[in-house]
Formats: sequence, C-alpha cells, structure tokens
Amino acid sequence: MTSEVISPSLIPTLPGHTYVDEDIFRAEQEEIFEKMWFCAVLSADLTKPGSYKTVQVGRESVLINRTRKGEVRAFFNICRHRGVKLCMEEAGVVGRAFQCPYHAWTYDFEGKLIAAPNLTKMPDIDRQEYGLVKIAVREYMGYVWVCLADEPPSFEADVIGAIEERLGDLRAIEGYDIAHLSLGRRIRYDVKANWKLIIENFMECYHCATIHPELTEVLPEFADGLAAQFFVGHGAEFGEDIKGFTVDGSEGLERITGIDDEQDRRYYAITIKPTVFVNLVPDHVIIHRMFPMAADHTIVECDWLYLPSVVDSGKDLTASVELFDRVNRQDFDACERCQPSMGSRIYAKGGVLVPSEHHIAVFHDWVTSRISAAGSPASH
Amino acid sequence: MTSEVISPSLIPTLPGHTYVDEDIFRAEQEEIFEKMWFCAVLSADLTKPGSYKTVQVGRESVLINRTRKGEVRAFFNICRHRGVKLCMEEAGVVGRAFQCPYHAWTYDFEGKLIAAPNLTKMPDIDRQEYGLVKIAVREYMGYVWVCLADEPPSFEADVIGAIEERLGDLRAIEGYDIAHLSLGRRIRYDVKANWKLIIENFMECYHCATIHPELTEVLPEFADGLAAQFFVGHGAEFGEDIKGFTVDGSEGLERITGIDDEQDRRYYAITIKPTVFVNLVPDHVIIHRMFPMAADHTIVECDWLYLPSVVDSGKDLTASVELFDRVNRQDFDACERCQPSMGSRIYAKGGVLVPSEHHIAVFHDWVTSRISAAGSPASH
Amino acid sequence: MTSEVISPSLIPTLPGHTYVDEDIFRAEQEEIFEKMWFCAVLSADLTKPGSYKTVQVGRESVLINRTRKGEVRAFFNICRHRGVKLCMEEAGVVGRAFQCPYHAWTYDFEGKLIAAPNLTKMPDIDRQEYGLVKIAVREYMGYVWVCLADEPPSFEADVIGAIEERLGDLRAIEGYDIAHLSLGRRIRYDVKANWKLIIENFMECYHCATIHPELTEVLPEFADGLAAQFFVGHGAEFGEDIKGFTVDGSEGLERITGIDDEQDRRYYAITIKPTVFVNLVPDHVIIHRMFPMAADHTIVECDWLYLPSVVDSGKDLTASVELFDRVNRQDFDACERCQPSMGSRIYAKGGVLVPSEHHIAVFHDWVTSRISAAGSPASH
Repeated sequence: MTSEVISPSLIPTLPGHTYVDEDIFRAEQEEIFEKMWFCAVLSADLTKPGSYKTVQVGRESVLINRTRKGEVRAFFNICRHRGVKLCMEEAGVVGRAFQCPYHAWTYDFEGKLIAAPNLTKMPDIDRQEYGLVKIAVREYMGYVWVCLADEPPSFEADVIGAIEERLGDLRAIEGYDIAHLSLGRRIRYDVKANWKLIIENFMECYHCATIHPELTEVLPEFADGLAAQFFVGHGAEFGEDIKGFTVDGSEGLERITGIDDEQDRRYYAITIKPTVFVNLVPDHVIIHRMFPMAADHTIVECDWLYLPSVVDSGKDLTASVELFDRVNRQDFDACERCQPSMGSRIYAKGGVLVPSEHHIAVFHDWVTSRISAAGSPASH
Repeated sequence: MTSEVISPSLIPTLPGHTYVDEDIFRAEQEEIFEKMWFCAVLSADLTKPGSYKTVQVGRESVLINRTRKGEVRAFFNICRHRGVKLCMEEAGVVGRAFQCPYHAWTYDFEGKLIAAPNLTKMPDIDRQEYGLVKIAVREYMGYVWVCLADEPPSFEADVIGAIEERLGDLRAIEGYDIAHLSLGRRIRYDVKANWKLIIENFMECYHCATIHPELTEVLPEFADGLAAQFFVGHGAEFGEDIKGFTVDGSEGLERITGIDDEQDRRYYAITIKPTVFVNLVPDHVIIHRMFPMAADHTIVECDWLYLPSVVDSGKDLTASVELFDRVNRQDFDACERCQPSMGSRIYAKGGVLVPSEHHIAVFHDWVTSRISAAGSPASH
Repeated sequence: MTSEVISPSLIPTLPGHTYVDEDIFRAEQEEIFEKMWFCAVLSADLTKPGSYKTVQVGRESVLINRTRKGEVRAFFNICRHRGVKLCMEEAGVVGRAFQCPYHAWTYDFEGKLIAAPNLTKMPDIDRQEYGLVKIAVREYMGYVWVCLADEPPSFEADVIGAIEERLGDLRAIEGYDIAHLSLGRRIRYDVKANWKLIIENFMECYHCATIHPELTEVLPEFADGLAAQFFVGHGAEFGEDIKGFTVDGSEGLERITGIDDEQDRRYYAITIKPTVFVNLVPDHVIIHRMFPMAADHTIVECDWLYLPSVVDSGKDLTASVELFDRVNRQDFDACERCQPSMGSRIYAKGGVLVPSEHHIAVFHDWVTSRISAAGSPASH
C-alpha cells in the first residue's frame, strides 16, 4: 500500500513500530538511557550537604546528593536490606544520613552503611559492600550527569564531543559560562509521544514556518525551512527589527558577559544525545532534559538560565521565557499528533524525510545500531 | 469441572477466552473489521464539500470526506510525510484542502498532494504516489461503507446479500427508502463487553421476556423467547392494543410512505456482519453501528431515522426513541454482565445455546473460520 | 553490581522479579490461591438463608451463600447458560433462589437448576449437571473457607496444622472461641504491593522499633527486633504500665471468657498461609484476610472481633481498634515503599534477611517450591 520505490529526494524514517513497541523501548532503556551519560539534575538544585534529588534514569530511580565536602554522589535509590525506595520525594534535604524508614538501615552521604539495628551483632557485614550501590557521576555545564553503566563511556567523547561537533570549537560555548548562570524559570512538559519524535522535531526546521510564528519572526532565516542552524558553527541571526530573543522581539535581559560579538544577536542549538537540547542566545541559555517514561510518554524539563544578577534582581522574565515556552508547546503538540499513527499499517515502513531533514537519518542509524547491537528487532 | 457430554438440546458457545484474549481480538481486527465492508458514517453527516468525519476501523483511523463533486472519499487519516494524524476531531469542515498542521503538506479532497514547503524543489515527488492512502468506499442505504482490504470482497454478496437472506426479497427493504430518511436522534453507547456478545444478544430473543418488558408489550410474540423474528421474511406483529412502536404503545410518527400494508404494524430485524443491526418499523428505521475498540470494549452508535417531514416538523420523538433506547441499555447491561466471566476456568469451553439460540452457532462458526483461516488459535 | 558473596549473617530474599512479574503472579494464583484453602468470608456475615457474599479467589469470582438448613455453599459466580456473572454486589440477600438477570435461569441455594424459560421442553437437561459449579467449603473459626481445587488438600494439615505449629497446642487458641466472637470493626486496606511483601512484613519484628512506636510501647520486647513472637507458643508480654491492648495502653474491653491466665496480658500472632494472619490478645482477636489482585496490588480486610456482650453494649472500641489500624497502615506503607524497587537491576537477586528474619526464608522456599512444581520460572 505504501510505495516500494522512494523518490530520490526522500529518505525513509524509522519504521512506525519502533515508536510504539514496548520491547523496542525496553531495548532503548537498556542500551541507551542506562548505558550513556544522562543529564540528571541542575547542580545548583543541590544547594548544600544533605540536599538530594531523585530522578528516573531508564527504568531505575536514582538518588543524587551533595556530600559534606560539597561533591555530588549518585546511587540506586534502594535500601540494600529489603529494597525500600529510600527517598520518595523528588527533592529534599536530610541532616546527617539517609535512613531507611522500614528497618532504619542508615547510609552516609558517600553511601556507606553506618548504622542498622543489631548491626554490631553482625560483624561480618562489610559496610562498604552493603552500602548504597554507586552510580558514576560527573558535573558539567552546571548539571549533574550520571551513567548507570558498569563501565561508563567517555564523557569527553559523547557529551563534550557532541558540543564540539556542533559548534566547531568548544570555546564557542565557554563564553556562556553556563555553570555560573542561575535558574530563572523551569517548566515541566508531559508529552504523550515517543522520545525519538521529540529529538527529530528538534533536529529540523522544516516545520518552523508552519508552527512557530513567533520564532520565525525573531529568526527570519528559520522561515525557509532549511534548518540552517545545523551547519557547523552556524548561529541563526536575529531579524533586523528584533531587539531580543523574546516572544515579541522586545529587549531581552542583560547580555551574558563572556560571549563574543559574533555570538550576539544569534541563536545556536545543540543536541546532546540521548536526551539533552541546549539553546544559546545572548542573554540566556535554555536546557531541555528529557525523561523517557514509556514508548508513548516522555517528560521534558526545560530550564531557562540567566546571569545571576538578572535572576537576583527579580526582573520580569515573562517575554523572554514565553518565546521558547510557546515553541515547546507547538513542538510537543506536533509530536503528540504523530504518535497515534505510528502503529498504522501504512506507517509500517515509516514516513519520509525531505532533503532539509536528511540529517535526521543519521540519528535514526545511530538508534538502530545501538539497539540492534543488543539483538533487538528494530531495523531501518 | 464443566460437563464433557452436552445435552442434545444444547450447543456449546465459543470458548470463553475468545472474548477476552487480545490476540484473538487482534486477529478479528485483521481478518474481519479491516477486511470486510464496514459501515462507517451516515452519508448525510457529510453535508457539503469539505465536510469530513473520522472513525476508527479496526486499528486504523479513517478520514472520510465529501468532494467538490459531492462524492465521498476515504483515506487513512495520516500525513504521508512524517505521520501526523491529519484530522483530530471526529467531524469538521475544511475550506479547500487538508493541510497537515506540522509541515503543511496539503492534500485535496481526492487525496492528491497539492502543496508542501519547497515541493517545487523536489520535482521527483509524484503527487499521486505521495497523496493520502485511499480506502475503498461505497454509499448504500444512506451510509458510507469503507473497506480497508487491498482487494475488497463483493459488497453485493456480503452486505446486500445479508439483507436479502434475512428478508427473502430486497424489495422488502426498498420501500423504507432508508437513504432518504432523516436523522431524528443519535445515541452513543460505551459498552464494556466484547463485540461478539453484542451480536449474540441481538440474534436471539430468548432473553426478551426477562429483560425487555416494554418491547414484549409492543411485540407479544417476543415473550415466548422463540426469536420468531429470524424466520426468513418474518416480521413480529404489534400487539392488538398497540398503536405504534413506542415505549408505551402510543401512536408513533408518520408512516414511511413506501412500505406496503404487510409491513405495517410489524418489526423486522436484520444483522449485517460484522457490525451492523437494522431494525425496521412502520414509522422509523433504527441503525446500529458497532466500533469494537478492545476485546472488552465496544462503542455502539445508534441512529433513529424518520421521514424528513417528521424531523423537520420538530415533532416530539421521545416516546419513539425511548423504546429502543431502553432495549439497548437492557441488552448492553446484560452483555457487560457476561464479560467478566469469559476468562473463568469454568467457561473455558464456553456456555451453552438452547434450541431457540441454535442459529448463533452459525455466527460462531463464521467467526472461527474467518480468524482460523489466518492461523489464529481460536477454535470452537 | 550486587555482591556475589553474601555475609554469613545474611540470607538472600526471593529475586526481585518474583514480586513484579505477572507470569509469576499467575502461577501463584494457579498453584496457591486457587489450590489451597482460602479464608473467604466471615460466617456471621451470612446471617440467614439466602444471604450471600461474593469474593475474588485467585482469578475467579466466588458466590457463597447460606442455605435453608443454615449451611454454607460456595459456587463459581457464573450462570451455566451464557456466562453471566450472577451476583454483581459484594453482599446481598435473595428470597428463594438465584435468578440470572439475562435469561432467567434459576438456581436454588444448593446450586441446582430449578427453572428456566422453556426448560420443560428440554427434558434432557440434567438439573444437577447444569447447576452452578460447586466449590469445596468449610466453616472454621467463624469464617467460611473455600478451596477451588478439584481435590482439596487436607484442611486439618494446612489450616489447623499451621495454628498448632505456631502455638504448640491447639488448646491455646480454643479458649478464644473465635467462632462465637462478634465483629466490632472491619477495615479494608488497598495496598499497592505484592502479597508476599505483606506476609514477610507480618513475619518479622525487626522493623517494629522503627515503624511501630505505639505497638512497641505496649509490647516492649518487640523493640529489640528479635521477632520473639515466633518462638513456638510464645506470646509477647504487655509492658508493666500497660493496662490493655490499646493505642495508648489504656484499659481494653472485657476479657474473653475462655482464655487462661497464662494468655492474659499477652499477644500471639499466627500466619496461616497463604493469606491469613491471626492476632490474639486478651480482649479481642484480629483477623486479616488478604485478597491478592495483581502482582502489585493486594486488598486486605481486617476484622476486629470481641465478645458479643462487648459489641452489643455499644462500648467505644476506638482506642482498641486504633492500635492495630495504625500498625496496619505503618506496615502497608512500608510494603508499598518496597514494591517500586522490585524490578530494579540491583534487586535482581533480591535483598537480604538479617538473622532475626531468617525464618522468612522458609516462606520463600515454600512459595518457590509451590510454583516451580508447576514449571514456573521463579527460582531462589
């Protein structure tokens, strides 16, 4: 029923079932989210020793906390005794230790078992061995990244390399000094769509003219649908009458100190696989973290980061935040309208990518190779 | 635990698991709803060019619209580019074309791709080839019937033949001129039961005395439970004191012009497999369309059709509609009380049909043969 | 990631997947709940002939009623004709018989088919053969126990034997004369946890000091976490200042007449596999019945039973009931905090039991042997 011969202009997408099949999704959890570096929480959210956050990474609940030395540690959020989920809240602060509410097994901020009823009568229990199970952790760009793999891949290659590949030069991002920006706004989106649809959406601008009127007003070159932002190092230029990256083109906030003039009045977008998008504009940085929950359900947390002086001043961020908040809602709505068709028999071989979307095929090949290496049935 | 030897009076039903097993239901979707002619929408609901309705047929969303020439067309409700569900609403009207809200691919009412951003730069794209995927369509008896099969079966044999087989003569239905009746009332029922339970219920009147007091009052011969309405050509006669087919036996509406005197004061019922029931009475016609959604969930839409003069006059239809609305609720309630037992081990071999229900076994054999031809595990 | 070598003090629990896997749960339904004696309803709830209750046992709905002779009978709650669920309510009273609401097949209190439309015209239908399908039933300790097995196991060995094994001597429970106590309060708990977690919780007191402040106040020996109550015949002694088994240690109700002085001021706990807990204190008896609904969902009904004179007098039972109601809520909350971790990869081999929990391993071995005998994949 679908055409066997595809026009030379077009490239097929992934088969539809890869967006709905729970077995494929489980393979993605195992081979992608639970094996790669995963951007988990904003470092600044762990304000002091004992501060913790819990996040779902793949199928696991991960507990991330700050130690007395100010470092971050990550653990499986599970008591070693009978399996209680140690911290139920998304965030909190504990005084001295994590104590299991069931039998009071108690762990310090390094995860070591430091107390339990009758523990002294069980001297053979090694307190490191029965400590919380550690997860690799790394702070970068103001975020805590974790990796559930026994042998984590190279952070430099996978995370930093993705930025370098996109911008051509790491110095291009260093000026934004993201680690020292402050959180101005955070919005959480509950998206009823597969995570790959969200990435694909972020990777092309063929849709911009249709669904993003505010964004194409600010960035006129987006209106031609050529996804110009994906040329190495290229940043889309603001329109002539545009004063700032705001919903109405009005003046933005204070320019980030370290960027160079070349970066002023430009928008840069970076995808760090598997779940992070970074948007750079002169006065703020927007970071998306995706949390894939099911084949048809993804939570996206989006942070708007500004100079601390801007956030501290209490300035009105509404026009600034509203631009990308609208873009997000427009994008996620589109993704949610794709999801119901993924199981159709006419989508069994997928849809098609037009020339300005061809680079998405590279992402498709990457997903396919990651999960087919594991013997999963997804194929292009 | 259940008896191995069945009394000669009795015939076993389908095994219980065929009413709950999602694999069986998927086979029924593939082999029955997605391969047979399926009564989708009332033609009159597509009032003008650009009017459309969307319905679920099997596992697919189908978009049905009226063209500028006044004809009807049906398509898979999916954009050929990236798979967006084109129309989200159940019904609507578009001005000139169907435009995808994601990347603006645009299709005319015949499904042809007529526009897309940068389409002129992709001259190798065949606009028919990348048009909406067509579905076979047919108007009959005032309804639009669709068939998702690549090679649709004979409409004459399957649909018209079912009516002829029941009534003995097609002329018996022609007098009702259903295509020119008007919709007086539509009620949608959400039934938590397998579609086969609903058909079985409609096919026998052994339950009438127990659950349909109003109906047996109007049609006294239904009280003996012999399902007399299923003799070829037989119509159940109204009771002596009954003035019309109404909840209290009061006068009905204006008699349909074309019926003959033999058909006056009689009720005829027809089952058109897989999902349609037709009820004929002197002053109106009742059409049920089933939409099987899951093994244990069926939506039923029921239309009450009258002479246009009756509907246009604004006459009170309450007593007329209420009779079969009550019958429907009584029936669906019974079906919903069967559903929970279907998975029980004592229903593993099914229940039993009494002599006046024996004809249901023909339906059972038909279902079994349709899905077992496809290698499905259901067996009688 | 988890330790391969376990400290000698510790014993592993069941693997985590046995608490979440629906296949394991189905095996438990088949091999445990549908084959063992199952404590279904309080006998006194069937107050008179025609009184009935419906309960879910494993995957089946069971109808239990009292006959004209005052005996109890249990049946699959399914009409033999077309499978209707006969009684939809949890409890009720019928006058003379159970009549199916669909086709009026009618069964007496012994389950015999006594009437149906046109039944006299089907003389070959054996009214016993087509009666309701019987389930083994037994009254004991004031409760109706049912067994869905074709050949029920020994009630004496499995139920009475469990009590004898725990108390050392059946006479120890006879004095409480539970069958003649009256229901003072019933509370139903909806627990989002696997039934085995609830049993394990009931079997150990290592958690008591942490989560049961009120209980350890009344029973000080529970504070040391040694689960002293599981020594054969041992009852935990009330604290010196404690006047009764109440939430604040205040005076309880009238002492049960038949207990001996040894049993006064003591608490005894008994687990009757698979789903019953019995707690004995001087003035009342607490009976828990579990109804496992899914791998992660268990309903627990808890009855507080007192001398009839206490219940009849209308005395305030609040302080008495509140003690174990709090204990229940504290316990079930702990179980619900274990459930989410059961699928984690670090719980793949389970957690560990400390020495005072070692006896839980006997329960684990028992579950494993029951379902692995049936070829199920759970292994220790």
